[in-house]
Amino acid sequence: MKVEVLRIGQRVVRDDRVTTHVALVARAFGASKIYMNEVDPEIENTIKRMNKTWGGDFEVEFFEDWKKVLKSKIDDYKIVHLTMYGEKIDDVASDIRKNQNILIVVGAEKVPRTIYEKSDFNVSVANQPHSEISALAIVLDRLYKGKQFDMKFDNHTRKIIPTKKGKKVVTK
Amino acid sequence: MKVEVLRIGQRVVRDDRVTTHVALVARAFGASKIYMNEVDPEIENTIKRMNKTWGGDFEVEFFEDWKKVLKSKIDDYKIVHLTMYGEKIDDVASDIRKNQNILIVVGAEKVPRTIYEKSDFNVSVANQPHSEISALAIVLDRLYKGKQFDMKFDNHTRKIIPTKKGKKVVTK
Repeated sequence: MKVEVLRIGQRVVRDDRVTTHVALVARAFGASKIYMNEVDPEIENTIKRMNKTWGGDFEVEFFEDWKKVLKSKIDDYKIVHLTMYGEKIDDVASDIRKNQNILIVVGAEKVPRTIYEKSDFNVSVANQPHSEISALAIVLDRLYKGKQFDMKFDNHTRKIIPTKKGKKVVTK
Repeated sequence: MKVEVLRIGQRVVRDDRVTTHVALVARAFGASKIYMNEVDPEIENTIKRMNKTWGGDFEVEFFEDWKKVLKSKIDDYKIVHLTMYGEKIDDVASDIRKNQNILIVVGAEKVPRTIYEKSDFNVSVANQPHSEISALAIVLDRLYKGKQFDMKFDNHTRKIIPTKKGKKVVTK
């Protein structure tokens, strides 16, 4: 299963930090790539630094127009749109999991109606307002059935050894 | 099981939006209260508006000094600190769940060493950097075993009916 993330509607500076968190969750929870606006080019450096230190080859690609990205994916990917109005993730996760290529669309604030129409799945995580960051985390968790936390990140320079108190890090 | 959240280290404006998301996740995923710095008093109004519209009685309490909050809880609560260096949540969730009162400590960036020492559990969600928002979401999900999404929010004026396309909302 290949999972990519499309971040749309991120336009203003105050969305930057949230988008950075979305990208980090995508990486840590098993997605392979995020497409986003180039509001803050620093995000790409942050991700590169993460890969270098903690491993893996998660990618960032900037777009001019998210509609083009969506169009390029729509034939080969199942489109999964995160929205508090959608079907419950626990009701549809097994159907989504049957597909090889998945594009998760993560909106900031209001999302154009066409996204609801074009998506194969409109999926909610609690029909309550919270955060696109937590929504993405839970959806990836359900798609990977929690196995994402056993995932190996190759070519790291540092690796954490889980510990009761303090910090234990092995440096290559 | 009663779960409260203590947000520490949130000092600057760029942390505000993340803290708002932390508070919304706490509310939507079953915690009853969040303690935080009064950097942005608007957060309290946001939460009140959420409760009024979508139900429930989630509380916000501002503090001058988080150390006092921690001290006031330490006898009656198990302290669960979220950190990428900690034990894996899936290894310790059943132990944490045995307790009646739980305080989850959510740091922003660097956290003083004393938190690691005073916590009963230092808990990680993936030993990779991501977001305190996703970490809190997954920890609450594991503590409630996914049942948080069936939780009732009383006294709502609006309620979402999960749907395949678009938005279906019942207004009282």
